Amino acid sequence: MSVPPITNADEPAEEVCRQVLQILALIGDKWTILVIGQLRDRTLRFGELHRAVTGISQRMLTRTLRQLERDGLLTRAIHPSVPPRVEYTLTELGVTLLDSLTYLGDWATTHRKRITTNRRDYDTAHQAD
Amino acid sequence: MSVPPITNADEPAEEVCRQVLQILALIGDKWTILVIGQLRDRTLRFGELHRAVTGISQRMLTRTLRQLERDGLLTRAIHPSVPPRVEYTLTELGVTLLDSLTYLGDWATTHRKRITTNRRDYDTAHQAD
Repeated sequence: MSVPPITNADEPAEEVCRQVLQILALIGDKWTILVIGQLRDRTLRFGELHRAVTGISQRMLTRTLRQLERDGLLTRAIHPSVPPRVEYTLTELGVTLLDSLTYLGDWATTHRKRITTNRRDYDTAHQAD
Repeated sequence: MSVPPITNADEPAEEVCRQVLQILALIGDKWTILVIGQLRDRTLRFGELHRAVTGISQRMLTRTLRQLERDGLLTRAIHPSVPPRVEYTLTELGVTLLDSLTYLGDWATTHRKRITTNRRDYDTAHQAD
């Protein structure tokens, strides 16, 4: 990926670059990716998400969901019951992000063994450094 | 993206998951993405990369390049001159990652204005919280 040339003259290049970086930083976060992945084609409650995303803490899940809601990537619906039922669903924008992330996930899955091997080889070759 | 079902019975599911997460965490890093993007179709020296990737410190660039070399995503060639010339080039594996990242970069570029607006709206609506 290259950060594309800036053609919009009414917006400073630095500001556009900063925004793209901020969004890339967000969507590159592994928890974000895993939460979005779990919401493919379904609505989940907080507890269901917490069980589905192995290893995430309640605090980090809360933070990740709030960021995603703030970005407009998912909606949070509160159903009046006792206790209230809170459900999370991807928005249309969230679904387009999921599609883009799929390429990256497929890449990591396809190449993970090779990268693990590369790392081991590198560490062996650089042990003397 | 969903973390794919684990079918390889000789490898614990947790370990596979950990590796994919580790790789996703790596390639999601904004500096990694920007450095790889700069090396599209060209070889660059350290100083050239440092100038091309706005805002990166020498220390972070060194660290990013070392990680990418360790993963086998780029090669580091030292040419004997005074001072030695050190050049970085994407490997075939690095080029495949760049292609996958392109989708994500395009997504961020296409939707950045909308996300910025979403964030502002959310912050306005939640000011009273």
